[in-house]
Amino acid sequence: MSVIPDPLPQLDSIAAERAMRRLDRLTKPPGSLGRLERLAVELAAIQAEALPRVSPPAMLVFAADHGVAAEGVSAFPQAVTAQMVANFTAGGAAINVFARQHGARLEVIDVGVATPLPDGTADHPLLVSERVRLGTANMLEGDAMSRDEAQQAMAAGGRAAERAAAAGCRSLIVGEMGIANTTASSALLAALTGKPVAGLVGPGTGIDDERLAHKRAVIERALAARQPDPADPLGALATVGGLEIAAMAGALLVGASHRLPLIVDGFIATVAALVACRLQPSLRDFLIFGHRSREPGHELALQALDARPLLDFELRLGEGTGAALAFPLLDSACRLLAERATFDDAGIETASVDG
Amino acid sequence: MSVIPDPLPQLDSIAAERAMRRLDRLTKPPGSLGRLERLAVELAAIQAEALPRVSPPAMLVFAADHGVAAEGVSAFPQAVTAQMVANFTAGGAAINVFARQHGARLEVIDVGVATPLPDGTADHPLLVSERVRLGTANMLEGDAMSRDEAQQAMAAGGRAAERAAAAGCRSLIVGEMGIANTTASSALLAALTGKPVAGLVGPGTGIDDERLAHKRAVIERALAARQPDPADPLGALATVGGLEIAAMAGALLVGASHRLPLIVDGFIATVAALVACRLQPSLRDFLIFGHRSREPGHELALQALDARPLLDFELRLGEGTGAALAFPLLDSACRLLAERATFDDAGIETASVDG
Repeated sequence: MSVIPDPLPQLDSIAAERAMRRLDRLTKPPGSLGRLERLAVELAAIQAEALPRVSPPAMLVFAADHGVAAEGVSAFPQAVTAQMVANFTAGGAAINVFARQHGARLEVIDVGVATPLPDGTADHPLLVSERVRLGTANMLEGDAMSRDEAQQAMAAGGRAAERAAAAGCRSLIVGEMGIANTTASSALLAALTGKPVAGLVGPGTGIDDERLAHKRAVIERALAARQPDPADPLGALATVGGLEIAAMAGALLVGASHRLPLIVDGFIATVAALVACRLQPSLRDFLIFGHRSREPGHELALQALDARPLLDFELRLGEGTGAALAFPLLDSACRLLAERATFDDAGIETASVDG
Repeated sequence: MSVIPDPLPQLDSIAAERAMRRLDRLTKPPGSLGRLERLAVELAAIQAEALPRVSPPAMLVFAADHGVAAEGVSAFPQAVTAQMVANFTAGGAAINVFARQHGARLEVIDVGVATPLPDGTADHPLLVSERVRLGTANMLEGDAMSRDEAQQAMAAGGRAAERAAAAGCRSLIVGEMGIANTTASSALLAALTGKPVAGLVGPGTGIDDERLAHKRAVIERALAARQPDPADPLGALATVGGLEIAAMAGALLVGASHRLPLIVDGFIATVAALVACRLQPSLRDFLIFGHRSREPGHELALQALDARPLLDFELRLGEGTGAALAFPLLDSACRLLAERATFDDAGIETASVDG
């Protein structure tokens, strides 16, 4: 599987040590900036730089459709995937707002939208067309895609990460759009962790209790029919996953090979990260989790990765929005290392004596 | 008490309603941006604008000393307050880093530093000298300050908020520096809430268990000696509070009178907000809590104000750093309202039908 860099670079403990020593000399009581200090050290280790830098970030939004949408598992019709792709290129979505706010390089990658894109969208400079197929197959009826197609989608994701690195981006946010992709992600998560579907299926972007029960039943039937093997993550990805999920996994792996800090978004992105970690466990070192989503499966996926997200904002949108919201915190951590005075610079007493 | 605006403006429910309606028409499932949407509506109500704006923010850092530092309750000598004021004006502190990151108007207001400022600091353009007295008195020996002095410090804080509003700032972050001010804040919090000191005293910027026990005993003795009346918040502020705490309370009240969203920092700022709310309960509508600090008293102060902070980053530094870290989230909420396409603009289907 050529898209999986093997081995990934290692965390740089010397850069981490230097960052830590600098933090301890800054004009503040040791450790008083809490998680921000740990984040700064983590970023130093990932980038192998005592003074890491995460700006500008790349935001990659992967879009694809899901055959299982035909089962009525989503609140929205499948055509919305293509419409939202057009909305991304037109600059009108939430992720566009945050991309402008944070000076990000935004790219929308169509790895398998099923319906035609609205006029003008396919030629838009923000859009990269890498359609592997016109959406996945309905997993109730057959494998979502072939192993080869899953690898092609991963490779498309990897190319997006390559472009981000080549453009000088210093961190990577991966997001997604795909009607019914919480269904695929839930199936994939259940397959990889062996956990019961009932505990991890949620309302996605908003369905009622009746449709939620239906969604759960669809996933259970699909898992029974496809029998994905937890020891074969690529196989599970192909049988019950999604093209955008595969692309995100590929982007994360290639991003790590460039020592880019990877800011993981919500439920779907975390499942993609889990697949990628199953393929290459040392990827975990490069992952920073932006946001805890309300989707119940997200908690389970986070546990499987031993992850604690930076924000808890009750988002359930995707697109990379949760990761994007967290970006300034990473930027603050880097600036803290680069711009602050040390006690020596500032001539401040450090002795712990009474005043 | 002329510094307390009476009445404060009311939240604008029409602006809030318009912001809410706009959020529901945006290209996303209703409510899918969670707390960010609620934040956007709250900001609209505070500013009486359907499209609120929080940038540029003002960051006001109030500095003062505490006579109780003589009891050895802090890990740092009292002289550090003046040294940190110089560090703020020199641009080397954490709050300076975040002020630059967020394009903030930063002001350092000396409302009662006890020791001389290092050369060049007093004349620095970032510094405003409003010394009410050379630090408070040791609350074990007498009232920290007089009621009149507490009001003077509040008025100094109010003037800082006036300057921020006059300069066109659209939100207000108040922070502080003052060796031993977690001791004063803990005493004040215990006085206002009637809660036992043991449950709310913490390590501040970092003391060991032995000194922590000593700090608790000092506060208990001070409360026994001073007998602050919870029904008289100004009196409690004067007897066991601090000059910078009073100034923060004044800045918050005057900031609210200008409809500035007030981003409250950690423990000490939250105690200042509690005092201000006891003086003028409708202030609560204008408060947004940036960060949950590790200081145990903060949890109690937050409960007293029914507050849930935006971030949980385990900071224990003060200076306004927790509020500053949270600022981009407010900015994201505003941009979301102002910059996003609605479903109508984007031509996206909203019917909840199967694809």
